[in-house]
Amino acid sequence: MNTPFTKRLATVQREKKSCLCVGLDPDVDRLPPHLGSSAIDAVRRFTADIIEATSDVAAAYKFNFAFFEALGSDGMHLLRELVPIARQYALTIADAKRGDIGNSASFYARSVFDHLGFDAVTVAPYMGRDAVEPFLSRSGTCAFVLVRTSNPGGNDLQLLDVGGTPLYERVARLSSSWAETQPGEPGFVVGASDLEAMARLRALHPDVPFLIPGVGAQGGNARQVMAAAAGGPLLVNSSRSILYASTNKGFAEAAGRAARELAAELNPYAIE
Amino acid sequence: MNTPFTKRLATVQREKKSCLCVGLDPDVDRLPPHLGSSAIDAVRRFTADIIEATSDVAAAYKFNFAFFEALGSDGMHLLRELVPIARQYALTIADAKRGDIGNSASFYARSVFDHLGFDAVTVAPYMGRDAVEPFLSRSGTCAFVLVRTSNPGGNDLQLLDVGGTPLYERVARLSSSWAETQPGEPGFVVGASDLEAMARLRALHPDVPFLIPGVGAQGGNARQVMAAAAGGPLLVNSSRSILYASTNKGFAEAAGRAARELAAELNPYAIE
Repeated sequence: MNTPFTKRLATVQREKKSCLCVGLDPDVDRLPPHLGSSAIDAVRRFTADIIEATSDVAAAYKFNFAFFEALGSDGMHLLRELVPIARQYALTIADAKRGDIGNSASFYARSVFDHLGFDAVTVAPYMGRDAVEPFLSRSGTCAFVLVRTSNPGGNDLQLLDVGGTPLYERVARLSSSWAETQPGEPGFVVGASDLEAMARLRALHPDVPFLIPGVGAQGGNARQVMAAAAGGPLLVNSSRSILYASTNKGFAEAAGRAARELAAELNPYAIE
Repeated sequence: MNTPFTKRLATVQREKKSCLCVGLDPDVDRLPPHLGSSAIDAVRRFTADIIEATSDVAAAYKFNFAFFEALGSDGMHLLRELVPIARQYALTIADAKRGDIGNSASFYARSVFDHLGFDAVTVAPYMGRDAVEPFLSRSGTCAFVLVRTSNPGGNDLQLLDVGGTPLYERVARLSSSWAETQPGEPGFVVGASDLEAMARLRALHPDVPFLIPGVGAQGGNARQVMAAAAGGPLLVNSSRSILYASTNKGFAEAAGRAARELAAELNPYAIE
């Protein structure tokens, strides 16, 4: 199978010795006050500074669309400005969690890949194959399907027993099979809160890239995560523990330090 | 239970003798050529004209975010212009199919309800309770949870057997229970392609509003849908069969005629 996305991921991780993904969730209510009173300017400066300060160790940047959409139409403009900055240094992921019927999904895919220029996107699986396939339609990109999420409500549906296996495992298997005939690559979102699920999914899907949220502010332990997901491509995301390491004028330096500390624990070449 | 959204729905349906929801999916590749070459201007004029032409029979307008996001930041601007026009006449639904962890979901809810001014939103259930609850946080609004969707891939997960019932039924039950402690109202998206599921869900949830896509271009029969969903609040969505009834200069009149024909079949007071 041709896997240009996974190959680029391996290249950038080799360069940086890190599988850290920096999650960009710029919450206007938590930005350092000195960045000014215009929300859009403050978010622009904050996000660009965080990208620059973490660029030596970030293998990817994940833009959380919720925080940009909350800024209205300016937020979408801002994404267009910021994605090219992030792409200079690392892979870029649109954390948009889209999932819609085929026709609408095609439009979302166009927005994310063609208009905004992302390398990957997060996708919701509940609507099934034709909701996911449009995000698998471009070579060199990856669609990270929500498989096992780290939030408390993740248990509500994902652990339901379907014919002897949990629903999340079925979703992983289905997503892999949908990708077989597509030029894009499938990935799985697998939260750090369920290491047992992570190890099980890794055993079943050794070649699928995992995007792993929940390390840092959400409580997951970096080394345990690396052990559970080892043996296949992975990105470990941390957002708040890096972005808000400090909220004074030294926020960018503090973010860079927090990123480097975490990246040292996420060195894929240091796993025993 | 206090249900201001459902009451407003009943009022507008009584006035218009219709439970038609006009789906606004403005596909730039399908717009009448005389609307001009600027995509944003053409979409603006097309959508505003469709709203005006169908306002006598539309109980609700459903804005499909995929088509607006495909226009980039201008698309979000356009939503801000168009939602107030639609609200003069009917309820407004943000068909955004959002679903994310609580913190991000709160930002999406702010965008949809506070910034854009929608009355309702569509929500994806895979991430569970804390992904849905923020959309249930405002009195007078409704969160339509994806329960049984009309696309072909809808079968992939939704029909999986979980403890003797299909997954979609479990999702309906869970969504209802999550709403019990919230000021917003729950609704279900139930596609017209599975009338058996629709009748079953109606029997189990007599008071929950259904948003029913899949009538018209997707093939569902209006009278059969009305029979299956009768006995509770409902909106039946049609998009393409109204929007693209004609693609020449008379597109708005043709859309109005198509809407009135369909609305006559969707008169909640004409059910035997």
